[in-house]
Amino acid sequence: MSKYRVLIAANDEKGIVYKVSTVFFNYALNMLSNNEFVDKENNKFFMRSVVDGDVNPDELQKSLNDVLPKGSSIEVIEPKKKNIIIMATKEMHALGDILIRHEAGELEANILAVVSNYDKLESLVSKFNIPYITVSHENLERVEHESKIIECIDSFKDVDYIVLAKYMRILTPRFVEAYEDKIINIHHSFLPAFIGANPYKQAYDRGVKIIGATAHFVNNNLDEGPIISQEIIHVNHAYGWKDMQRSGKDVEKIVLSRALKLALEDRIFVYANKTVIF
Amino acid sequence: MSKYRVLIAANDEKGIVYKVSTVFFNYALNMLSNNEFVDKENNKFFMRSVVDGDVNPDELQKSLNDVLPKGSSIEVIEPKKKNIIIMATKEMHALGDILIRHEAGELEANILAVVSNYDKLESLVSKFNIPYITVSHENLERVEHESKIIECIDSFKDVDYIVLAKYMRILTPRFVEAYEDKIINIHHSFLPAFIGANPYKQAYDRGVKIIGATAHFVNNNLDEGPIISQEIIHVNHAYGWKDMQRSGKDVEKIVLSRALKLALEDRIFVYANKTVIF
Amino acid sequence: MSKYRVLIAANDEKGIVYKVSTVFFNYALNMLSNNEFVDKENNKFFMRSVVDGDVNPDELQKSLNDVLPKGSSIEVIEPKKKNIIIMATKEMHALGDILIRHEAGELEANILAVVSNYDKLESLVSKFNIPYITVSHENLERVEHESKIIECIDSFKDVDYIVLAKYMRILTPRFVEAYEDKIINIHHSFLPAFIGANPYKQAYDRGVKIIGATAHFVNNNLDEGPIISQEIIHVNHAYGWKDMQRSGKDVEKIVLSRALKLALEDRIFVYANKTVIF
Amino acid sequence: MSKYRVLIAANDEKGIVYKVSTVFFNYALNMLSNNEFVDKENNKFFMRSVVDGDVNPDELQKSLNDVLPKGSSIEVIEPKKKNIIIMATKEMHALGDILIRHEAGELEANILAVVSNYDKLESLVSKFNIPYITVSHENLERVEHESKIIECIDSFKDVDYIVLAKYMRILTPRFVEAYEDKIINIHHSFLPAFIGANPYKQAYDRGVKIIGATAHFVNNNLDEGPIISQEIIHVNHAYGWKDMQRSGKDVEKIVLSRALKLALEDRIFVYANKTVIF
Repeated sequence: MSKYRVLIAANDEKGIVYKVSTVFFNYALNMLSNNEFVDKENNKFFMRSVVDGDVNPDELQKSLNDVLPKGSSIEVIEPKKKNIIIMATKEMHALGDILIRHEAGELEANILAVVSNYDKLESLVSKFNIPYITVSHENLERVEHESKIIECIDSFKDVDYIVLAKYMRILTPRFVEAYEDKIINIHHSFLPAFIGANPYKQAYDRGVKIIGATAHFVNNNLDEGPIISQEIIHVNHAYGWKDMQRSGKDVEKIVLSRALKLALEDRIFVYANKTVIF
Repeated sequence: MSKYRVLIAANDEKGIVYKVSTVFFNYALNMLSNNEFVDKENNKFFMRSVVDGDVNPDELQKSLNDVLPKGSSIEVIEPKKKNIIIMATKEMHALGDILIRHEAGELEANILAVVSNYDKLESLVSKFNIPYITVSHENLERVEHESKIIECIDSFKDVDYIVLAKYMRILTPRFVEAYEDKIINIHHSFLPAFIGANPYKQAYDRGVKIIGATAHFVNNNLDEGPIISQEIIHVNHAYGWKDMQRSGKDVEKIVLSRALKLALEDRIFVYANKTVIF
Repeated sequence: MSKYRVLIAANDEKGIVYKVSTVFFNYALNMLSNNEFVDKENNKFFMRSVVDGDVNPDELQKSLNDVLPKGSSIEVIEPKKKNIIIMATKEMHALGDILIRHEAGELEANILAVVSNYDKLESLVSKFNIPYITVSHENLERVEHESKIIECIDSFKDVDYIVLAKYMRILTPRFVEAYEDKIINIHHSFLPAFIGANPYKQAYDRGVKIIGATAHFVNNNLDEGPIISQEIIHVNHAYGWKDMQRSGKDVEKIVLSRALKLALEDRIFVYANKTVIF
Repeated sequence: MSKYRVLIAANDEKGIVYKVSTVFFNYALNMLSNNEFVDKENNKFFMRSVVDGDVNPDELQKSLNDVLPKGSSIEVIEPKKKNIIIMATKEMHALGDILIRHEAGELEANILAVVSNYDKLESLVSKFNIPYITVSHENLERVEHESKIIECIDSFKDVDYIVLAKYMRILTPRFVEAYEDKIINIHHSFLPAFIGANPYKQAYDRGVKIIGATAHFVNNNLDEGPIISQEIIHVNHAYGWKDMQRSGKDVEKIVLSRALKLALEDRIFVYANKTVIF
């Protein structure tokens, strides 16, 4: 008896739940949980089921493929720890939050390495017996620097997600394309407000009463990838921008860890530059 | 072609989604939305589907009944305006919020009447051409007073919900039983904190940093019925209890109206003194 | 014995609190509440005191002026109902919320009139015996239409605030300048995200997980005036943009009413396109 | 030139701000920030000023004492790292959050030691070169166990705060009295809801739609001490109590760290079993 997560994205048509549940029934699978969503605007059907039973996952995948509309995306995933690489620069809060969760056994993940353009976080990371790799950008063109990072990442096998825990350098399209829908970033504003550099300074200058953070997948346009999770806190006139930055850290780390958890549990569909999350 | 809301609460068993979706498929129904939940602790299955098609609702209900476990609750509801009676005492905010929504056409409801133990709100209610009935409790035993209110309510036909929009008198078991799972109350605290009278005063005395409101169905135990919706706001030492009361009004009215909307859209299952809400 | 609100904005300098409190002490005033803030970046001092005592307000103002740095803004305000004009278009929720609060006696305000470019809200407003003035924009140039509205507003005396309760037309600089720091608008996004038309559609297209509303003073640049209050709610993939719009209404009306209350209680300083709020 | 935090709690009387600011002025002190609050119910005045200047703190304290009502509490505090001892049991999240903040240099605190009744957290704490002291409660009466802990704490000098980062044992009055207003606890509910053991299970059984956490000073009555900070998250029917527990951890750690920061910055007054926080 095994447990599987079944993820289906298909063009919507009448009877689609009937067809899927018939397949599950024929394999005598028990549905432990089930979520569905139809995007009527785009006529798209999304479904995430957790099933329990005695079935070969490839066979289940094939059977579903036989009944579902052509071009459907069907995944049958056996829950296990995913492999992640964390990228960071100098700040400790978001990285530290992931390290503590990892240490506590809360994350369905192996942290293969932490990669940074500075050595500042090495003493923290090494406490946890996790490889820390400094790839300095000094005296390097952006492309050269990224090539070194790609080389570094690709020296690991089966990397499921790259988590940008306040990695403060802009990624080139080449990098982003190499890991499509696999790079999770935390941006320190409620996007799309305050795209780009120093959002807290921007927020302060604008006199906002709310600041926030956004976890999103990275695509080629800076801070414009599909949003996974957002959270805010209230601020007031007494907050200088450094105060906003300080207070914002708590939101950033919680939002990034929340997004990572959703990814590790295979709860996120990416579609039309948006996410469907169950 | 008609639209129906199908609500199912059943003992959970393997194949239950398969069976329901087979019935839908056989009637050529289109599932516009679908939500499911299994309460594993109690082995209970809940499902709310919105379907679209050409079917006799009684026949659909019967067909579902034929395939579902014995004792299942199955409702096939044609969306239409429900009939509500509002009860209030002296405060205007929660009642006013419902009146404005009603006037704006936002509510799937006919307001049959507003019943109060005072005449204070009559001038407001009568602006909206809604019957206002004062049933004073003065010089009456609680049971006598309630008998008069029950008589008043029962003079209307097909009352779907009774909304207590800050009705400040305790209801007896007789009243509550007469309208089981039909009475929606707003309590001005995040239950179960501050049960009973003057929760803002209690909150102030306790020095809380958060106050809230809870919409719930009423059962025989004061403030202990199934919770539908809750919301909070932050307060600080500068809030006296009257400030809390004033600020709390915004939360109260929003939470009550939100709960009423959920009820009117048939989104709430009541089970084991809790709610499942889709 | 009278109560006064004293509002001071001055260049910061050593001893400023000492000087103000000495004046209060010399007049034997009792400080019921006191808030201060120093904007160190701009070297600006803000203070709002509520004092109680037997004093001539003009004399108090003069005495404060004598001790404070040249160029200070000093107001001694006797609390009383302010005069407001509400402008709206077709939506009922924000306007209705203010009408109910007014009816309940919650607002320190007289509503002189509701001005709209449509007659749709007349039946609501007239229930409350408040003048409703339709100034249609049909067949008029923007400037002509605005001239008519200005004429209409100026037919009332002593207008303290103009409240844009979902008035859906863009105001020209001429209009804005005529009522500087007196026009309070509700924008249906957490500014600066989604400036301009149909922010809910924009938010939906961007796939955000949070929507919000912003109350702000209006200046010449669309949606860029000083922010007074902001609030958000969480949404998810199941929200179409109409759902966002519907849910957003509750945030809009609460935020606008909150901002209005702050203005009516003389709690807002406007400075450097921001607000200091006590 | 030094910076001082001046904290005053006094019976309110006319002229109190005048008197304090006169003292500041006479010492040529610059007020960097100033907060005041009058609790009218209890006729109590609270003030926290940060001043900058060349003054002997004892002399300043004495001068303030000379002008303030008899029985006033006056503290002149030079900002410096405070000494804290953390107590924990088996859970990592709240402790880990403090350790990371400490490592990042965010906390105005030296962590003297972590004391636990289990050795489970030793491997985490020892990574950070912080003493970990296991004081097992096995085979010991509560009083004996506590005596050992008190002995352990008292082996450190100048302990400013004891932080209960999910220390899961009830403290006796003797312990609490020994460290009055110095013990900060995180309780995993929004008090006063769900006092006592396993609040998440209680919350689940009650069917709440909101869960929360409360940081408070500990006094003799379990979970009834002065509240410092509270925060909540929304939950729904799909949350089992273990899910609530898991999600609640994020709130717990943020709230505890926030309360600790307030304490370390001398921003909290405790009065009448409440807190005044600037």
